[in-house]
Amino acid sequence: MSLDQAAHKPHEALAALLADDMGRVNDLIAARMASEHAPRIPEVTAHLVGAGGKRLRPLLTLATAQLCGYEGPYHVHLAATVEFIHTATLLHDDVVDESAQRRGRPTANLLWDNKSSVLVGDYLFSRAFQLMVETGSLRVLDILANASATIAEGEVLQLTAAQDLATDESIYLQVVRGKTAALFSAATEVGGVIARADEAHVKALFDYGDALGIAFQIVDDLLDYQGDTAATGKNVGDDFRERKLTLPLIKAVAKADTEERAFWVRTIEKGKQEDGDLETALELLNRHGALEDTRQDALKWAQDAKDALADLPDHEIKTLLIDLADYVVARIS
Amino acid sequence: MSLDQAAHKPHEALAALLADDMGRVNDLIAARMASEHAPRIPEVTAHLVGAGGKRLRPLLTLATAQLCGYEGPYHVHLAATVEFIHTATLLHDDVVDESAQRRGRPTANLLWDNKSSVLVGDYLFSRAFQLMVETGSLRVLDILANASATIAEGEVLQLTAAQDLATDESIYLQVVRGKTAALFSAATEVGGVIARADEAHVKALFDYGDALGIAFQIVDDLLDYQGDTAATGKNVGDDFRERKLTLPLIKAVAKADTEERAFWVRTIEKGKQEDGDLETALELLNRHGALEDTRQDALKWAQDAKDALADLPDHEIKTLLIDLADYVVARIS
Repeated sequence: MSLDQAAHKPHEALAALLADDMGRVNDLIAARMASEHAPRIPEVTAHLVGAGGKRLRPLLTLATAQLCGYEGPYHVHLAATVEFIHTATLLHDDVVDESAQRRGRPTANLLWDNKSSVLVGDYLFSRAFQLMVETGSLRVLDILANASATIAEGEVLQLTAAQDLATDESIYLQVVRGKTAALFSAATEVGGVIARADEAHVKALFDYGDALGIAFQIVDDLLDYQGDTAATGKNVGDDFRERKLTLPLIKAVAKADTEERAFWVRTIEKGKQEDGDLETALELLNRHGALEDTRQDALKWAQDAKDALADLPDHEIKTLLIDLADYVVARIS
Repeated sequence: MSLDQAAHKPHEALAALLADDMGRVNDLIAARMASEHAPRIPEVTAHLVGAGGKRLRPLLTLATAQLCGYEGPYHVHLAATVEFIHTATLLHDDVVDESAQRRGRPTANLLWDNKSSVLVGDYLFSRAFQLMVETGSLRVLDILANASATIAEGEVLQLTAAQDLATDESIYLQVVRGKTAALFSAATEVGGVIARADEAHVKALFDYGDALGIAFQIVDDLLDYQGDTAATGKNVGDDFRERKLTLPLIKAVAKADTEERAFWVRTIEKGKQEDGDLETALELLNRHGALEDTRQDALKWAQDAKDALADLPDHEIKTLLIDLADYVVARIS
């Protein structure tokens, strides 16, 4: 059932269902990214926001608030908050990664400079903070403050864990929670909190967002090794070339014999890569079933996401959220 | 009177008077800058926090809370918040300015890398946000959210206003509020708010912090042109060499004749500086009384800071805050 529906892109179905609210979110984003004094701010932000992206995170907040019967105005503020935090982290990530492309366009750090990316990211983060204060909910503020700290901590951890062959699956999970799942789970949790859903449902929404975010990131990391460049917009092996210890590699390193380990030390820790190394890496990943194991992990997290919603009442939105979990892993199923 | 006392450094007198509270602030800072997972975070932060600095901003929060009779625990959280925001902005500033030295030591971006400075700054900002949520005061959150936005906006404005001869005194003031005064005024205002001081006193404390911060920054910009290198730790003319349009330059440019204007276009806008240009710049600054006018502006802001406190009840701390305003301008008096 759900794989068929997945083909219809459940996030687009959600966007259609929540189009009025999403329109309000977009208006609020446009109003708040303006700056009376510093025109550089909306220039940089418009470049990124204008490039689109699926607006998945604000959709999750709108969806969970409506699923829990919310009728007030503040889910719009929270959805805009979540998108601002996401955009701010993208701007800072592109500086940290020295990226040249994002969403198929040159990055802000390339078009303007790193300075603008750092400072406009700070500005958007402050704007996010103002928006959430307007909701008047200290609990929402607590959730988003904690999510922000987890995001920043995960990013720093990624910096030190990268290229370190001692990085294991538990460190990987912390990094993934920071870079992806913390904002997904905050987005779904605050939707329930603002609607004053009961605690079990709030917990369920948190668990859904957490597992969905983890599945989402594992799929991304898996497709880096076996994706279709035309579909993913990434080249196969980018993470290998950038010496990033993602889940497939971590699994292969854990099973490496002495000779294989020397290969990983040379290519990842020391970064001395030669022609043919990517092919060798792929061969090692397959030899130890690392890609298949990674795929199974992603499917397990997607199943966890669906299971988390079990006790929530039947609702059109609940069905779409379940479909969304299937859709996230559809590309690797 | 106050100039004599100023010689005794009123911020040191404040620090002595508030030593117990300041000890609690330092403990809280140490506890919250820790990171279970990412040891890079406390390394970077300890480097900066360990280098000292006067801790002027947290002192202002502790002082104003006590001046208004506060007896609860949360002024300590707010003082730590303010210091974390300050440290986060320093980390990001050093990336933006490509600085090599801060507080007489190599900057974090030089010792580690820009990535660490960006991400650890983000982490400290999130930690600041968590600390203020713990106070449970939405009003305090609103003030600090607005201050954060003003800071970031001012920094972006400085980026675009630098090297632009059209930058006038009103833009300069916006930049100064962003880079310095917004956090001073938030620090003093939240001290009053957490103590539930009456509105007139809260307003007075805001005005004091705002004027003090502006005086502080103008003095800094003036000393860049006439300071004693041994005392300031800066070389005369750094701002000129870095083509920064600070108040002395803005005043001289406003009075420039055609030939002088060509000089400023070449040295500041185009950045084509030659031997002897700094001496010419200093000669032009003196010719138009730009340094003396800047000095008068600083003294006026210091007076405004003192005047703002007029209606607050007599108190040992009030006297020290007045002395502090005198002390800030004592180096140019």
